[in-house]
Amino acid sequence: MWLEFGRVFQQLSADADVRAVVLSGAGDKAFTAGLDVQSASQDSTLMSDQKDPARKAKGMRAQIEEFQASIGAMEKCEKPVIAAMHGIALGLAIDISCTADIRICASNTRFAVKEVDIGLAADIGTLARLPKIVGSTSWVKDVCLTARDFSAQEALAVGFVSQVHEGKEKTVQVAIDLAANIAEKSPVAVQGTKELLNHARDHSTVDTLRYTQLWNSVALQGADFPAAILSVLKKQKPTFAKL
Amino acid sequence: MWLEFGRVFQQLSADADVRAVVLSGAGDKAFTAGLDVQSASQDSTLMSDQKDPARKAKGMRAQIEEFQASIGAMEKCEKPVIAAMHGIALGLAIDISCTADIRICASNTRFAVKEVDIGLAADIGTLARLPKIVGSTSWVKDVCLTARDFSAQEALAVGFVSQVHEGKEKTVQVAIDLAANIAEKSPVAVQGTKELLNHARDHSTVDTLRYTQLWNSVALQGADFPAAILSVLKKQKPTFAKL
Amino acid sequence: MWLEFGRVFQQLSADADVRAVVLSGAGDKAFTAGLDVQSASQDSTLMSDQKDPARKAKGMRAQIEEFQASIGAMEKCEKPVIAAMHGIALGLAIDISCTADIRICASNTRFAVKEVDIGLAADIGTLARLPKIVGSTSWVKDVCLTARDFSAQEALAVGFVSQVHEGKEKTVQVAIDLAANIAEKSPVAVQGTKELLNHARDHSTVDTLRYTQLWNSVALQGADFPAAILSVLKKQKPTFAKL
Amino acid sequence: MWLEFGRVFQQLSADADVRAVVLSGAGDKAFTAGLDVQSASQDSTLMSDQKDPARKAKGMRAQIEEFQASIGAMEKCEKPVIAAMHGIALGLAIDISCTADIRICASNTRFAVKEVDIGLAADIGTLARLPKIVGSTSWVKDVCLTARDFSAQEALAVGFVSQVHEGKEKTVQVAIDLAANIAEKSPVAVQGTKELLNHARDHSTVDTLRYTQLWNSVALQGADFPAAILSVLKKQKPTFAKL
Amino acid sequence: MWLEFGRVFQQLSADADVRAVVLSGAGDKAFTAGLDVQSASQDSTLMSDQKDPARKAKGMRAQIEEFQASIGAMEKCEKPVIAAMHGIALGLAIDISCTADIRICASNTRFAVKEVDIGLAADIGTLARLPKIVGSTSWVKDVCLTARDFSAQEALAVGFVSQVHEGKEKTVQVAIDLAANIAEKSPVAVQGTKELLNHARDHSTVDTLRYTQLWNSVALQGADFPAAILSVLKKQKPTFAKL
Amino acid sequence: MWLEFGRVFQQLSADADVRAVVLSGAGDKAFTAGLDVQSASQDSTLMSDQKDPARKAKGMRAQIEEFQASIGAMEKCEKPVIAAMHGIALGLAIDISCTADIRICASNTRFAVKEVDIGLAADIGTLARLPKIVGSTSWVKDVCLTARDFSAQEALAVGFVSQVHEGKEKTVQVAIDLAANIAEKSPVAVQGTKELLNHARDHSTVDTLRYTQLWNSVALQGADFPAAILSVLKKQKPTFAKL
Repeated sequence: MWLEFGRVFQQLSADADVRAVVLSGAGDKAFTAGLDVQSASQDSTLMSDQKDPARKAKGMRAQIEEFQASIGAMEKCEKPVIAAMHGIALGLAIDISCTADIRICASNTRFAVKEVDIGLAADIGTLARLPKIVGSTSWVKDVCLTARDFSAQEALAVGFVSQVHEGKEKTVQVAIDLAANIAEKSPVAVQGTKELLNHARDHSTVDTLRYTQLWNSVALQGADFPAAILSVLKKQKPTFAKL
Repeated sequence: MWLEFGRVFQQLSADADVRAVVLSGAGDKAFTAGLDVQSASQDSTLMSDQKDPARKAKGMRAQIEEFQASIGAMEKCEKPVIAAMHGIALGLAIDISCTADIRICASNTRFAVKEVDIGLAADIGTLARLPKIVGSTSWVKDVCLTARDFSAQEALAVGFVSQVHEGKEKTVQVAIDLAANIAEKSPVAVQGTKELLNHARDHSTVDTLRYTQLWNSVALQGADFPAAILSVLKKQKPTFAKL
Repeated sequence: MWLEFGRVFQQLSADADVRAVVLSGAGDKAFTAGLDVQSASQDSTLMSDQKDPARKAKGMRAQIEEFQASIGAMEKCEKPVIAAMHGIALGLAIDISCTADIRICASNTRFAVKEVDIGLAADIGTLARLPKIVGSTSWVKDVCLTARDFSAQEALAVGFVSQVHEGKEKTVQVAIDLAANIAEKSPVAVQGTKELLNHARDHSTVDTLRYTQLWNSVALQGADFPAAILSVLKKQKPTFAKL
Repeated sequence: MWLEFGRVFQQLSADADVRAVVLSGAGDKAFTAGLDVQSASQDSTLMSDQKDPARKAKGMRAQIEEFQASIGAMEKCEKPVIAAMHGIALGLAIDISCTADIRICASNTRFAVKEVDIGLAADIGTLARLPKIVGSTSWVKDVCLTARDFSAQEALAVGFVSQVHEGKEKTVQVAIDLAANIAEKSPVAVQGTKELLNHARDHSTVDTLRYTQLWNSVALQGADFPAAILSVLKKQKPTFAKL
Repeated sequence: MWLEFGRVFQQLSADADVRAVVLSGAGDKAFTAGLDVQSASQDSTLMSDQKDPARKAKGMRAQIEEFQASIGAMEKCEKPVIAAMHGIALGLAIDISCTADIRICASNTRFAVKEVDIGLAADIGTLARLPKIVGSTSWVKDVCLTARDFSAQEALAVGFVSQVHEGKEKTVQVAIDLAANIAEKSPVAVQGTKELLNHARDHSTVDTLRYTQLWNSVALQGADFPAAILSVLKKQKPTFAKL
Repeated sequence: MWLEFGRVFQQLSADADVRAVVLSGAGDKAFTAGLDVQSASQDSTLMSDQKDPARKAKGMRAQIEEFQASIGAMEKCEKPVIAAMHGIALGLAIDISCTADIRICASNTRFAVKEVDIGLAADIGTLARLPKIVGSTSWVKDVCLTARDFSAQEALAVGFVSQVHEGKEKTVQVAIDLAANIAEKSPVAVQGTKELLNHARDHSTVDTLRYTQLWNSVALQGADFPAAILSVLKKQKPTFAKL
């Protein structure tokens, strides 16, 4: 299923008809409850006959890398992704939503970085991304070390999500409206903005400024910038070609 | 005008009589409304006859680099800069204020990272600096991808500004008082603090700690540290020489 | 005393019987008032007869490095450290608490990054770590450049601390309960979580993800993961061996 | 064909029966003459109808990235790869061989970083890797800026290749013997050595040392280290299980 | 004079008529003997009345930064620079030539990293660039710590220069021929190659590969690539427009 | 013994009477044959009863870290270290000599990165440092993956050592003369040169240039620079105070 998840986002990234993506969870109860503990207890790599720790490690590194790559495909997707969460959102729910661009949730969402309670440090992305997504390291370490629940309101207060709405339906609708709003804008501007903000996270200011010069030296040669300028001057609503 | 902006801050940085700087916008209406769309529609580089995309790109890279350098001169200025904003503060207003050390604003300020609405990814500094200035990446991407307005209160809640006051006049006065307060302190201590905090943004903790050792190995040899210590012991108000 | 502080945390890091640490200040009045100004005025390195600035600098670099290393031992301690602060918490109090994993405080705590007022840029860690611990750079520069006090509530609002409680006694009790909670969990999971979150602060996302693969390729071979999984399935409370 | 190249090396990396790889060119005349100019002149992305430079750029970035990933699969292959080159070795030949671990060549090999002569900066890896593979930057820039030929002897003198032999047949035989020699050693030791040397290229010394601690903390738990030690003590030839 | 040096290279970088640059020294005796010791003994910053070490340091940092920027302008010049050296080439001669792309010299050249002998660590660029320009760190530290002379032949053997010729006249002629050769090639290809090789020096392989994708996504849209391809197919000599 | 090695170099670094260090091996036969295989086969951490791989790993990480730190103390020693090698120089001999500043050897020296032959990837520093010390990566991987011997002449050709002499006695004498030569120079200049060259290895050019500005802003305030300048003008031999 997670390999499929990765492939879907590779496709969304390449498909020029797609301009923004909303990710939500099926059903009323949960965004996702994370790892299926029953199934993990029978995982073939973890439970393999291989007894040599050095050899077993190679298989495990490969498996974690593949899992990280599948979830990370959402971050690499060149279109903005909005995660609309509700209900139970544990473990992998955090790994996944950390790779979204914008996180909003229903007021009943119950989050937890649950991994410590099943005996492991979160390894699909939460520990790499969460401290770069919210501002309070003390809070990040609190929730990651204790595996305690935190509410939608707490998530909003620390900046993990940027909006909270009543119920799943309303939350998803807001996400779709937000996506529709973004989809009407220049895809050259939108996708460039995502790329450059992601670049900033992992590079120095000087490096991102230089990368930005290069990026816009071609992006500004497209039809969108003059078309948008013209629309502003003429107070018309522009339309932009696919990208 | 922006080249002039850069030169002014180079001069403020070099002038030993200056100990802190307040930047505000003239007039009641706006800090700045950003790019002049009319003028941009006639920009010589963007609208040049050059048809070869590779050659056109070189001119555009150079132009963006020059613009970034002018605005970035405020960040490189060795004295603390306080941006006191009010009214309309769009596009370039965000690029500029991101290079200030402290941001405060009037309660009527209306901010927006407006660039997406004119068909481009912000390229003068907002996308490189904003995610390192506030804690919530979800919020940063929301405002950058939608180009929506945000209020003074919202800016305070996410930490983009650290104070909100009633009206421009009061805001500027608070900024001046803050600058006066800083100006009374040891310029060796103040300028070192700015330098080391900026260093921390783009370097690992280990690197900043090492750079700090070197910095203070000479800063502490100046007259300010013993003078300040003595003032504390004698409960007197110290004065510090220019730097 | 600070050398002793460092050695204590090296020992806590190595002692497998220790699973979590609480740091609080003795007495009712202060967590710590920071540098003893009287004693600093007689510091042998600062006040040495050495008149050659280049030679004096070498001694000072060494002294700052040693001090940084002692305080930094708390960050390197492989067990989570909870700083429970109260009363006066100035200067070195901030350097120290920045190396803790979780910061909580009593509602009467009075914080200040005081160094500018004694004529120096903070050099034991505050300027390197504080901007990576809280989300608002404008606030960080405000408190570092002005040396002004800030309250427990302000510290909570910007995310410097993640909990505020009434009085020292209650605060310390909460910290101990939190530590006890963490101590019951798998030490493999807990110590891995601390390590990976600290790694994320100073590395790119890609680098931390790769380091995580390697880390869990051996951590998951331990007894804790299957034991924890089994406990969840059997709804029992697991116990974990020392690490 | 290049997508196939990438898939082959992914398979070689995963197949535990493979312990070392030799890459050579078919036929007597060339390792590879690089880009097929005739075919490039009809490349669908380059020659597409898309006239919008911003939109065209997206397709080209994707195409270059895919090409880089295919060739880069050889570097990511966890088994050592020996490139045995002969005859004409232009353009892509350099991109490819830069991703090998060991480069040897026949004395008749004629190399060139040919891209400048077909109007582009090399973009499949040569410019990113060559300056990290040989010691003389002056030489690297000479051959990359002039696109001039260089001989096997010159390649040896600057360290681009580490051995030169008479003729293709002899060169390939030496490569196979070298691979066979490596294949008899502990795969845990061999693959760890490749991983850590590659890590060193792109990380600071401190970072690689830390990664090394973690790597060997599990690698040394395998059967190979005690088996190898025992073989040395008993002066026997060890055999090592697959990895 | 050095400020002038910087301005000249800024102009050469911007002037589209310039496609390659040769730097040589006037007169028969020296490329440059480096710092004028007599003049340094009267340097206003070094010998200023300022007695406060912290304040004096600020002036010195600014002066070194300005000097570094002037010399570094040659590295930032977007056209390839060939340094053709002869005779005495001490101290600053090394700082300067380290910022060139290609270094060649006359067989009578006498080099030395002379700074240690006048009581300082080289601060205009030699210590930052030399270890990244030649392959043997042991040799680099030998010549930098002892300040001993080294010959043209030794410079060639370690890769500091890539060619040695008889006498200044011949050396300069070779440099001019090399520049002329480069000047006939596509300036889009040539300047891109310089940019990407310089990028590789200070970034990870992954980062340079990504930057390369972006660079060529616009460079390949220019007229040079199809023109060069066509020339190869038609076996004609292409000409390329200015850049 | 290795802990002692580390402590000796910490002491040499701190002792102002020491200005340069020569490291050689006792006896005629070997610089060092590296790990004592007999003793390794009884190593308490490796052979401990601990069966839990996650717990065993923690002990091993700590042990490797301690070993790395001991050997690395030679690199951190602020005085230049010259390694004068002879005879057998295997395994740890390479780890150790990679942390020296200058490497010279007797013509009879027989080197090998031997670790692969005892079933492990070298973990005390060779794999982190060797690729940054010599220019040919193909050669580095050849000797690290095959564990084959290489001679003094081969070490010289690739730049691992910078001088080869006849016999141990002569080699050590040359090293002592070299150290004596360095010891007569300004220790401010010499130690600054070592620091800045080491900084360059692990930082970008821009970062090292900035660090250099700061370093010399205090170093040039010492007595050595004017004294050295004066000596040159007066053609006298200067003497420099201890550092």
